Amino acid sequence: MSAQAATIAGTRIVPEALSRHALIERFQTIRNFTEHLCDPLETEDYVVQSMPDVSPTKWHLSHTSWFFENFVLDLEMPSYRSPKPEYAFLFNSYYVQSGERHYRPHRGLITRPTVEEVFKYRQHVSQHVEKLIDEASQETVVRIAPIIELGLNHEQQHQELLLTDIKHVFSVNPMKPAYAESKPVQRASATPLEWIPFESGVHEVGHSGASFAYDNEGPRHKVYLEPYELGSRLVTNREYLDFIEDGGYERAELWLTDARPKVDEEGWRAPIYWEKEDAGWRQFTLAGMHDLADDEPVCHLSYYEADAFARWADCRLPTEMEWEVAADNVQLEGNFVDSAALHPTSPPKANSGTVSQLFGDVWEWTGSHYSPYPGYKPAPGAVGEYNGKFMCNQFVLRGGSCATSITHIRSTYRNFFPADARWQFAGLRLARSV
Amino acid sequence: MSAQAATIAGTRIVPEALSRHALIERFQTIRNFTEHLCDPLETEDYVVQSMPDVSPTKWHLSHTSWFFENFVLDLEMPSYRSPKPEYAFLFNSYYVQSGERHYRPHRGLITRPTVEEVFKYRQHVSQHVEKLIDEASQETVVRIAPIIELGLNHEQQHQELLLTDIKHVFSVNPMKPAYAESKPVQRASATPLEWIPFESGVHEVGHSGASFAYDNEGPRHKVYLEPYELGSRLVTNREYLDFIEDGGYERAELWLTDARPKVDEEGWRAPIYWEKEDAGWRQFTLAGMHDLADDEPVCHLSYYEADAFARWADCRLPTEMEWEVAADNVQLEGNFVDSAALHPTSPPKANSGTVSQLFGDVWEWTGSHYSPYPGYKPAPGAVGEYNGKFMCNQFVLRGGSCATSITHIRSTYRNFFPADARWQFAGLRLARSV
Amino acid sequence: MSAQAATIAGTRIVPEALSRHALIERFQTIRNFTEHLCDPLETEDYVVQSMPDVSPTKWHLSHTSWFFENFVLDLEMPSYRSPKPEYAFLFNSYYVQSGERHYRPHRGLITRPTVEEVFKYRQHVSQHVEKLIDEASQETVVRIAPIIELGLNHEQQHQELLLTDIKHVFSVNPMKPAYAESKPVQRASATPLEWIPFESGVHEVGHSGASFAYDNEGPRHKVYLEPYELGSRLVTNREYLDFIEDGGYERAELWLTDARPKVDEEGWRAPIYWEKEDAGWRQFTLAGMHDLADDEPVCHLSYYEADAFARWADCRLPTEMEWEVAADNVQLEGNFVDSAALHPTSPPKANSGTVSQLFGDVWEWTGSHYSPYPGYKPAPGAVGEYNGKFMCNQFVLRGGSCATSITHIRSTYRNFFPADARWQFAGLRLARSV
Amino acid sequence: MSAQAATIAGTRIVPEALSRHALIERFQTIRNFTEHLCDPLETEDYVVQSMPDVSPTKWHLSHTSWFFENFVLDLEMPSYRSPKPEYAFLFNSYYVQSGERHYRPHRGLITRPTVEEVFKYRQHVSQHVEKLIDEASQETVVRIAPIIELGLNHEQQHQELLLTDIKHVFSVNPMKPAYAESKPVQRASATPLEWIPFESGVHEVGHSGASFAYDNEGPRHKVYLEPYELGSRLVTNREYLDFIEDGGYERAELWLTDARPKVDEEGWRAPIYWEKEDAGWRQFTLAGMHDLADDEPVCHLSYYEADAFARWADCRLPTEMEWEVAADNVQLEGNFVDSAALHPTSPPKANSGTVSQLFGDVWEWTGSHYSPYPGYKPAPGAVGEYNGKFMCNQFVLRGGSCATSITHIRSTYRNFFPADARWQFAGLRLARSV
Repeated sequence: MSAQAATIAGTRIVPEALSRHALIERFQTIRNFTEHLCDPLETEDYVVQSMPDVSPTKWHLSHTSWFFENFVLDLEMPSYRSPKPEYAFLFNSYYVQSGERHYRPHRGLITRPTVEEVFKYRQHVSQHVEKLIDEASQETVVRIAPIIELGLNHEQQHQELLLTDIKHVFSVNPMKPAYAESKPVQRASATPLEWIPFESGVHEVGHSGASFAYDNEGPRHKVYLEPYELGSRLVTNREYLDFIEDGGYERAELWLTDARPKVDEEGWRAPIYWEKEDAGWRQFTLAGMHDLADDEPVCHLSYYEADAFARWADCRLPTEMEWEVAADNVQLEGNFVDSAALHPTSPPKANSGTVSQLFGDVWEWTGSHYSPYPGYKPAPGAVGEYNGKFMCNQFVLRGGSCATSITHIRSTYRNFFPADARWQFAGLRLARSV
Repeated sequence: MSAQAATIAGTRIVPEALSRHALIERFQTIRNFTEHLCDPLETEDYVVQSMPDVSPTKWHLSHTSWFFENFVLDLEMPSYRSPKPEYAFLFNSYYVQSGERHYRPHRGLITRPTVEEVFKYRQHVSQHVEKLIDEASQETVVRIAPIIELGLNHEQQHQELLLTDIKHVFSVNPMKPAYAESKPVQRASATPLEWIPFESGVHEVGHSGASFAYDNEGPRHKVYLEPYELGSRLVTNREYLDFIEDGGYERAELWLTDARPKVDEEGWRAPIYWEKEDAGWRQFTLAGMHDLADDEPVCHLSYYEADAFARWADCRLPTEMEWEVAADNVQLEGNFVDSAALHPTSPPKANSGTVSQLFGDVWEWTGSHYSPYPGYKPAPGAVGEYNGKFMCNQFVLRGGSCATSITHIRSTYRNFFPADARWQFAGLRLARSV
Repeated sequence: MSAQAATIAGTRIVPEALSRHALIERFQTIRNFTEHLCDPLETEDYVVQSMPDVSPTKWHLSHTSWFFENFVLDLEMPSYRSPKPEYAFLFNSYYVQSGERHYRPHRGLITRPTVEEVFKYRQHVSQHVEKLIDEASQETVVRIAPIIELGLNHEQQHQELLLTDIKHVFSVNPMKPAYAESKPVQRASATPLEWIPFESGVHEVGHSGASFAYDNEGPRHKVYLEPYELGSRLVTNREYLDFIEDGGYERAELWLTDARPKVDEEGWRAPIYWEKEDAGWRQFTLAGMHDLADDEPVCHLSYYEADAFARWADCRLPTEMEWEVAADNVQLEGNFVDSAALHPTSPPKANSGTVSQLFGDVWEWTGSHYSPYPGYKPAPGAVGEYNGKFMCNQFVLRGGSCATSITHIRSTYRNFFPADARWQFAGLRLARSV
Repeated sequence: MSAQAATIAGTRIVPEALSRHALIERFQTIRNFTEHLCDPLETEDYVVQSMPDVSPTKWHLSHTSWFFENFVLDLEMPSYRSPKPEYAFLFNSYYVQSGERHYRPHRGLITRPTVEEVFKYRQHVSQHVEKLIDEASQETVVRIAPIIELGLNHEQQHQELLLTDIKHVFSVNPMKPAYAESKPVQRASATPLEWIPFESGVHEVGHSGASFAYDNEGPRHKVYLEPYELGSRLVTNREYLDFIEDGGYERAELWLTDARPKVDEEGWRAPIYWEKEDAGWRQFTLAGMHDLADDEPVCHLSYYEADAFARWADCRLPTEMEWEVAADNVQLEGNFVDSAALHPTSPPKANSGTVSQLFGDVWEWTGSHYSPYPGYKPAPGAVGEYNGKFMCNQFVLRGGSCATSITHIRSTYRNFFPADARWQFAGLRLARSV
């Protein structure tokens, strides 16, 4: 086996992952976790698409399987046959070079295949991928390991989307059903906000090395940063309530011009899952409706809201480079999907003078539009559509959330959403220039 | 028991229906038939709303139960408790006087209650209605019989809608699943079209007598008709194909001004469920995709298409009064849901000189806008919203279809749809002035 | 000259009109009146289209000229040349058989030809039509007289539209400019409403005879009417205010289902030109903003509003046949454009027991959808598109308004608008069944 | 007079400009040039708004006057009275802190004030500003000079918009009127494309010094650039035609995901003003329709088109920093509005090894989203809304165009438009990483 890391579409993979056994085990662990997330669901819950951005659970289960079928089995296993060739049309998301696709906003109109058939399809694909890894030549394994690794990271992204989407699906039901009881995570009081300073100078940012990363995280390159300061923790519900109570949503001068039609036409007056009742503010969570907790990080903000809040606070959002420089060499720990809290939590007691909560809880909106790094080149072919073609009119988020797997995140990871997207687990940290 | 028919909201009911036993039996028969129609469905099929006009099967099952709960049990059975008070919000269709309602186009976003819970809700309501009929005073039975009868007719309407809607749901799935194999109905060749003449003069139209009818079928009143002729049978697929092949959809001069934006923007070039393949035209049916049969009545036309076809044929659509005068005293027989064909069929051999196929197969578009009859008064209260508030910008259809129950239809029955609606089982018969 | 009336497209014309001199004089009178209506306008006022239903004044001036060019000069005067062949594209309204047309909602985007060029175009067309009448053979004059008569009636319709449209154009300007001072018409107090009864029976309705009428007014035919009563006068502003103050716009049960999205989305709370100020209600008129006068007929209602008001008053709108039977043989007099008031006025003192204000002031909404009369046939060719293709989802209005020429109206005249149209001079009269 | 430059809203102004006489002269020159641009227009041309992004000429004339009224006269000249207070509502563009505004897409619905009144309003404002400069205390002149300078730069921006918008207005007229004959600019053949290299390192970018610049051009700051190359000239029509003929618009893999709905729904197949006729491609210009010239810079591209072309050419767009570093110290010369060509021209003969056409001809799309520079702070108050609130979902363009004044542009100037905007004079230059 080559000691060199294989590379495809910006995906790099370390040699030790190329042990067949380890690869199969990792494949099974991640595939099983997807199914584990479905345990609390009823059959009806798998079918619905509550808005165009949301996909039905059924679709997530199928699409992540189609990914392996399309990018691995169809190419590398001549004997492989799809149980239904129409699935390729239904479960291709946006890869124009992989053929025609079903219209995205219509994913919730498809009753068949049934959930049972979808699970069979998953099993069919999984068994063939495992067989392929087990039986292929060493040369083939080296060649396909990176795309399998990409497929597993892709599956982890859809695990987070599955939770994000099912939360929205449940939220539009007037009966507000709960997905599951959340496992309580120890709560603390929010610590006073400190400002942590960073000096100016040339820094290296972006991914390097042999471990897996998406192509949009590289190439590693130099940037010059002017001096800046970051807030020591995430912004809390209590702080965001102050903004609301100060007329934040009504004061047009606090908002980007782009934001106002959304705010006005959709009547935004609070984060998407907040509801004001006579007894006070409540919030829809994956565990149903709960009272708003002052010290938790504010969650489910759009970029517009995060930006307006920062302006109201006479601060700004950090750039993604400022965030990455701060997160470099910080221990990767936090409230991830692995904790099963499924909700952001109050900050842990942190040492004064440090930036805490960089990972987990909520994705942090940065003030950086999502653009390619200098020298960025997407891979040839359909797999090159993974990231690059979205580099327009989106903003970068960093750090992962309570719905992200800890094995999926790192300091160079670039998530991205349009400025008006509110249903993902996103909050903010303040920054300021010196 | 009073010899007088009880009346509510234009609903008249004959005394013999007031036998408790007969009423319960009729109640059970009709309620069971709704559930029978669900036998071929998978759980996933119950959830989807494929366009705003369509309702999920789950919703039809619940709404027809809510109707009895709201208009009978809540009023007449003080001990009755709804299993979930939120159901009233979810399952009220359009009765503004019965309280706030869920937004119609969002019916397909609701995963809970589950299908199983919905069937339990149906059972709960049915058992209480039966108990009420069984145990109430004779006076109460006389009072509630008309509204129960209205509820049963309402349920039969939703049985037809359930089939109409699930056909659309399946049609938008690229895999084109079948609802069920249709029971073959004997096919004949279409007989040559004859013109059947009717003389001018004053006629009486509208419902009278003690049997059930909707309020919009009365009062019975006089109309003056100029002489006219009706086609002896329905227009066939072959005849409609001639229209298509003659450029019917492209020739703007054949169409109402209102129709063109729809035709152009949605690219209409054939009835909604037709598809042209290399080997010829095919049609989506409740039994899946089938070759187009020349001699079957053309089905799933909008008013716009029926009107353009008639203009192309140098004819016109009959008015609803011309249709009713022709149907008066004609034996009620035809291809109804009871035959389980679930698809229109070629006409039976008919005696020359008679108007055939007046009932069943397809609803017949008339050239009459849906307006109130002279002296029409809706009932007071929410039940008065059943028909009257829709008397604007819709057209009347007559005669029932292959998805209608034979016990639900009669010569005075007025169905109505907007001019652009295409998903219901609707075709046409030609008429002309003399 | 033939003693026979020539007929085209349902247009009938009496022999005496065929005197060349009289025809030219009538042509000049009506053409000049169009230009007279433009006297108060600035150049900028001619250009704007304030909503898709409105046409710029410039367009009305050109289109009415194109009508004569297209239907008379191009066919009957071989030597005629259009000054700009592109005008046919720009100034054809909706005659698909006369060739491609400019997109209607874009009429206000066209700055050239200038107003001066448009007036030259009018003059060019007028001179040639006059020359044609003057010099053509007698046979030709007989043949073209009906289409010229149609063109003149068409021009009178556009005179009313010109006023209706320029009122809307001025109304959307926050500075609320006035078109012109209105000539005061003597005001009276509204008389108490009386109910005038009509008996049941067979009546003849529709146009007959040699005078001009549109094709949609015939054929004359018999109808049977049940007994009914009409209000002795139009509904007044004061009565409509009572409806508003009783929560009329908020009470959904008073409205057609079709109406509510409009009412809710566009926030209807009063007729289109009413504004509530601290000192009371005011109304935009062609003479600018004025205080609302209690006793004037309510004006600028949609069908939806007229229908909701009638339901609130426990009455209904008359059918168009009920109106026509009442108007038959009534003297044609009232407040027309000829009075230059350009605004509806309080009713004249009327004899008790009679139906007053049938003509002029405001068009009266009827409860009748706009449908063809029995035996109706549009003329062949483009001119047949004048009326027939609009017979869908519109309602009939009767009697003319303060913007109609007295020489343009008659008891059989059928105007028609969609149910949501509010910018035309339309009000209502109550009716009820007996 | 203070030797210090006065500063407002990022506007810096050199002391010598504070000579009253020089300031008045500059004020008059720029104000007069706006009116000079209107010379070829007819009254009707001033009124129309051909799409929401376009403003009527009348509005540009008024808004630029309102700017001086609102930001100078109302604050600094107590005796000043607006001729019509309603103008503030009509002619405020987007300054929420300056009060309520007219709805932008409705600017073309306003016929009054007339063009004549608008010119009077301009004169009224100009005379008062001149009087103020002439008569105010020296201290006041120092204080207001920066805001007057901002107003003059603002007016120059609207001069370019006026031309850009009137071109669009004329283009939607099927008669394709010409604004004016363009003054021919000497044409050359396009030189072969050379790649000009730039080295990596830390650069300073952004405006500094005492001359005027917008606030978004600063603060001057350091950036690190990786090595890159720029095309020696702009992309030509011929090169863009190659892209079209290679199926560029149809090949989805060349486009950003965001772009495809626009391309597909609006049927983009060429730049907005190109039309393919039998004899070949033609292009609408301010001088009317002309044959497409191969060697001219391609113009009127959206960002989407520029980006897709660059991807097709296996290159990319330069970042705004790469562009600025290349333009630093380059002589400011080119084809500007001052040449009266009003159309981009073939490149001048350039020395090999240099980057030519950086200024004038067409704005150059960069690959940089429009974001604030480190340390950017908008001015307090309404004037701070000038730039900052648009820093979301737009891209930066550099270098000016044939519709820009040479006195208005510089190497640090940041123009910005949304990615789908096509009506401005925008083209592209290729770049690539090394």
